[in-house]
Amino acid sequence: MRKIKAGVLGATGSVGQRFVQLLSSHPWFEIAAVFASERSAGREYSEVAKWFLPTEMPGEVAEMTVKSLRELDDADVDIMFSALPRAVAADVEKRCAELGYAVSSNVAVHRLEEDVPLVIPEVNASHLALIGHQKKRRGWDGFIVTNPNCSTIILTISLKPLMEFRIEEVHVATMQAVSGAGYAGVTSMAILDNIIPFIAKEEEKMEREPLKILGTLEGDRIVDASFKISASCHRVPVIDGHTEAVWVRFAETVTAEDVKSAFESFKSELKTPFSPKNPIIVREEEDRPQPRLDRDAEKGMSISVGRIRESKGEGSEIKYIVLGHNTIRGAAGASILNAELLVELGYL
Amino acid sequence: MRKIKAGVLGATGSVGQRFVQLLSSHPWFEIAAVFASERSAGREYSEVAKWFLPTEMPGEVAEMTVKSLRELDDADVDIMFSALPRAVAADVEKRCAELGYAVSSNVAVHRLEEDVPLVIPEVNASHLALIGHQKKRRGWDGFIVTNPNCSTIILTISLKPLMEFRIEEVHVATMQAVSGAGYAGVTSMAILDNIIPFIAKEEEKMEREPLKILGTLEGDRIVDASFKISASCHRVPVIDGHTEAVWVRFAETVTAEDVKSAFESFKSELKTPFSPKNPIIVREEEDRPQPRLDRDAEKGMSISVGRIRESKGEGSEIKYIVLGHNTIRGAAGASILNAELLVELGYL
Amino acid sequence: MRKIKAGVLGATGSVGQRFVQLLSSHPWFEIAAVFASERSAGREYSEVAKWFLPTEMPGEVAEMTVKSLRELDDADVDIMFSALPRAVAADVEKRCAELGYAVSSNVAVHRLEEDVPLVIPEVNASHLALIGHQKKRRGWDGFIVTNPNCSTIILTISLKPLMEFRIEEVHVATMQAVSGAGYAGVTSMAILDNIIPFIAKEEEKMEREPLKILGTLEGDRIVDASFKISASCHRVPVIDGHTEAVWVRFAETVTAEDVKSAFESFKSELKTPFSPKNPIIVREEEDRPQPRLDRDAEKGMSISVGRIRESKGEGSEIKYIVLGHNTIRGAAGASILNAELLVELGYL
Amino acid sequence: MRKIKAGVLGATGSVGQRFVQLLSSHPWFEIAAVFASERSAGREYSEVAKWFLPTEMPGEVAEMTVKSLRELDDADVDIMFSALPRAVAADVEKRCAELGYAVSSNVAVHRLEEDVPLVIPEVNASHLALIGHQKKRRGWDGFIVTNPNCSTIILTISLKPLMEFRIEEVHVATMQAVSGAGYAGVTSMAILDNIIPFIAKEEEKMEREPLKILGTLEGDRIVDASFKISASCHRVPVIDGHTEAVWVRFAETVTAEDVKSAFESFKSELKTPFSPKNPIIVREEEDRPQPRLDRDAEKGMSISVGRIRESKGEGSEIKYIVLGHNTIRGAAGASILNAELLVELGYL
Repeated sequence: MRKIKAGVLGATGSVGQRFVQLLSSHPWFEIAAVFASERSAGREYSEVAKWFLPTEMPGEVAEMTVKSLRELDDADVDIMFSALPRAVAADVEKRCAELGYAVSSNVAVHRLEEDVPLVIPEVNASHLALIGHQKKRRGWDGFIVTNPNCSTIILTISLKPLMEFRIEEVHVATMQAVSGAGYAGVTSMAILDNIIPFIAKEEEKMEREPLKILGTLEGDRIVDASFKISASCHRVPVIDGHTEAVWVRFAETVTAEDVKSAFESFKSELKTPFSPKNPIIVREEEDRPQPRLDRDAEKGMSISVGRIRESKGEGSEIKYIVLGHNTIRGAAGASILNAELLVELGYL
Repeated sequence: MRKIKAGVLGATGSVGQRFVQLLSSHPWFEIAAVFASERSAGREYSEVAKWFLPTEMPGEVAEMTVKSLRELDDADVDIMFSALPRAVAADVEKRCAELGYAVSSNVAVHRLEEDVPLVIPEVNASHLALIGHQKKRRGWDGFIVTNPNCSTIILTISLKPLMEFRIEEVHVATMQAVSGAGYAGVTSMAILDNIIPFIAKEEEKMEREPLKILGTLEGDRIVDASFKISASCHRVPVIDGHTEAVWVRFAETVTAEDVKSAFESFKSELKTPFSPKNPIIVREEEDRPQPRLDRDAEKGMSISVGRIRESKGEGSEIKYIVLGHNTIRGAAGASILNAELLVELGYL
Repeated sequence: MRKIKAGVLGATGSVGQRFVQLLSSHPWFEIAAVFASERSAGREYSEVAKWFLPTEMPGEVAEMTVKSLRELDDADVDIMFSALPRAVAADVEKRCAELGYAVSSNVAVHRLEEDVPLVIPEVNASHLALIGHQKKRRGWDGFIVTNPNCSTIILTISLKPLMEFRIEEVHVATMQAVSGAGYAGVTSMAILDNIIPFIAKEEEKMEREPLKILGTLEGDRIVDASFKISASCHRVPVIDGHTEAVWVRFAETVTAEDVKSAFESFKSELKTPFSPKNPIIVREEEDRPQPRLDRDAEKGMSISVGRIRESKGEGSEIKYIVLGHNTIRGAAGASILNAELLVELGYL
Repeated sequence: MRKIKAGVLGATGSVGQRFVQLLSSHPWFEIAAVFASERSAGREYSEVAKWFLPTEMPGEVAEMTVKSLRELDDADVDIMFSALPRAVAADVEKRCAELGYAVSSNVAVHRLEEDVPLVIPEVNASHLALIGHQKKRRGWDGFIVTNPNCSTIILTISLKPLMEFRIEEVHVATMQAVSGAGYAGVTSMAILDNIIPFIAKEEEKMEREPLKILGTLEGDRIVDASFKISASCHRVPVIDGHTEAVWVRFAETVTAEDVKSAFESFKSELKTPFSPKNPIIVREEEDRPQPRLDRDAEKGMSISVGRIRESKGEGSEIKYIVLGHNTIRGAAGASILNAELLVELGYL
């Protein structure tokens, strides 16, 4: 099988390097072009990317000449993976769709647009049907598909199997790894022996995105899920892996055992290379999941839940811990899984 | 003024060292005896205490001979500060009260007993009236006064000024420092680049103790406050300072501004050496309080709150961050402040 | 090929878990028995080992019943891998050799005995000839082979290719990971935001062991190498991976380029499963090797060197940084590689 | 006594904030002006300085309007403390001296100029005599005095009392705190669970600066000390406090006891506010000094030494550990102590 040609937009940054790492050994895709800012363009990838992953920089990408974002037109590419800075993403991603490329984007900028699918394959694959409306409405040959914010993905996968119990309200407190802020996003002076109880725009995303993802496709639009989410987001001195303390209040009477069963019986029908066998791993130990021990479960594509227990809060409330790898399951891996779904469903 | 003679029970451990550090320069108290396990008894304090505080071990204590817990009877001491391991605390503290000593204890074991005051001076000084009932009922010359668990103190001080809005429900997620587990409580292999989303018995304490403290003294007993608390407790790689993300739901309609005003106008009437001028410091910055920057506010005796904002949850809900020094305000300093209150109110 | 049956002595500790992890997928060995202290004996491995590695506990070992060290006699085992605490290792390992087992030990206790090989396969495989003398002298059916201390292995591999320039003196400062002290060896209170400039007995080992390893086999004994080593050892807040700053003074005039070439041309003849293709990887970046990025090179079995530069010290001196994975290349992996060498050379 | 008016150049950065913190409560100096880049100029200090010290920003400075570096001419200031970025320091500091200000600089740029004193008061106060030559040669009304690099200061204070034994050669490996790189100098992704074995230009400074400081004033120039220094510099995940492993080789036969005595009998004659009573504190514990425990000794102005032991290296060699607070003793505090010395000696 001929490999599908992929471009990486914003290839030198934190998520960009994950794209390069994960795609370089992907059985379906091959990296055909890497794009970055004007400053890096025209130079070898190995010269301009300050590589910080513990695996070696893939040799074939190391020697590629980085392209400028003004060289989009004649890229010999089928799909663009986007890890662009927010400021430039809006224009560049639209331009790519216009030029006929499929765009699988990890950037926030288009996520909430009405005709843009915001997808987690195990949760709402059907929302890809928006692609048709999007292309038609915008007159594009290509299209844009997005995945949610890292913290949102982890939370939302865990909420999906609980929808059957009629969720009324969610409280969530996050403990987020520094890699989520990009390579230079959190200085060591700020986080050693410390917690930063604030992440710009994060709570807003967590309170909004899950409602679209867990919403219902009706004709050419998504009707949002109707429960309420209140998030408090915090940065901790952890390299990779977001941990979230979650409380879910239900309209129905639900036991911890019910929730555990729902997690355990949640399976994915997708059998693609990045699709985890178990999207949700249930940990039985009293002190798991933990980021250092559980973030790499199923190559970083599974989320882990644990400490499922009944809450002393009002009504029928359950609390649990959920954890996932923020730059794999929560970012680059999420976009790649979306791309795999596009292939499976014939969009690519 | 003659200084009040103090004994420290469990003087070599994490909280015990804080007692030694804080009492050694106290204007009212002087350390007259230090007690520890059989293993340490009979040797110089400097030999048996692996000192780990960044200030020097106080010279006069360094040279004291550590006493065994079997040498309680003839200690020339007015008050015992207790940082004993839970297993021995029950018997030893009772024995001390029997022998006529006042006991100011940081240990959990007696906190919830009906006739034992569980006190934070700024919150429920009136509960000390239980002392009379306690002495009478038990036939003791001395008595036991306790302070709450570290996380509880920090949370409860912040809840006190909000009681006027009629609290219905509290959700709290903690990010707790390793010093809270004692010197050897958390191995570095467990916590470097990691979070442990579990602390034994901590959630139970946080869900129960505030209700007693915020309860009402009626005759010889406390009627608990009636709202609900649901806690999720987590250990983070921070040395000192517990951070807590709090949601409070009110029966009344309350704005973030109301809550901020309530915090700001909360003052302490106590003017003793360890009493902070401002029990609650309100931080205006979007990313404060932070443990490394705020834990030492007013010598570690103030708590700091910030990020007061309206919640997207059901009803009238406010969320905020609260932080305090767990081994000062949350442990040794709390017991010392209680002892100062005992002096002020004539119990000592 | 029938797999060789392996026992793991001290299987629940830090190095013991690495043995279990690494052997469980080894093509030549299979774990037939796990031994630990009386306290753990008789229970399932999964119950007594507080597993702290980021890969799952191997299923087949999880269900094994842990054996006591008094059940050595009838173990159905060909080779014992030893990660015992020093206090018990001396007797137990000798008893194993007596009982006819091959013992590949990571413990310090027998390393410097005259007839016990202290071996790094890439450096001094020939020293295994001591086995014959050992068996004869002691009247054992089995035998003991040892690998060096973690810091020593990393240093010594780097010194081997430099022997041709006639080393006169070595200065080495280590920055050692906490895993080297065992799971509970370094409490978080001791090492967060801190350095401990002392590791018990470590400097003595580093100053002595390399001289035996780099010594010459003459008849039935090793004549030590004759240069001098001075070590300063320090613990740093790193989970895995020891970093060492090394200065080597030579009798000959040597350039940084000479040293680099010597490192690059150093190859291993061993082609066994754990043998790294490149025992020494030379990093060209100005700020490498780094523990988080380089410790896992070739599955943790290669050491990485970098920053090779001429020193301003007296005479002909070169300085460089060397780094290796302390619990893989420096401990469990080292013992396994020695066992592979025993198989290759027919000792097993 | 009228306070001496001080300006702080580069007042918003890491060292600049330390200047503001330390000078704000200084009995001799008062902050009269704060200077920063064009971007910050014209705005309140509290608005532009992202304050990261655990003490509160001094109120009187918080409200000062930050001045641009083009407003040097009419500053009502007696002395300028400089924490400027290297790129602008050369011109700005010279311009200040020209304008008649005394400049006490922490910047590297002028340190090695022949007529610029590079001073540690306890070590080479006499070198201030260069000021006269400097003013004359350059035709300046003011002058520039510098203090060494942070790592150099700590090392050099420890070497001073050992000069009597005739030092021949020094090897030093540093473990340097992240604050030494400035607030945003080391990203958390780079240093969590990691070591960076490289600090730009640091080894060069450590190998060169001590020779000037320990050199001899002969007429209008310094004759450098003649021993050799070889340094290896490394960044560790510590917030404040540089730890250095030092080997010193002597021409004379020297014991560990000799070195210890020399350290202990080293006293400062200076009795100014920032002058530590004991410039060198000798720790007897086997595992001290440690940065978190010892960096704040005598308000961060003392260095601590420990683990003094004889080396297995060639000749008469001693090894020890030395530690100091890099942004107090090693930077802002050093410049302030130099300024105090200028006052004492009548230069200011």
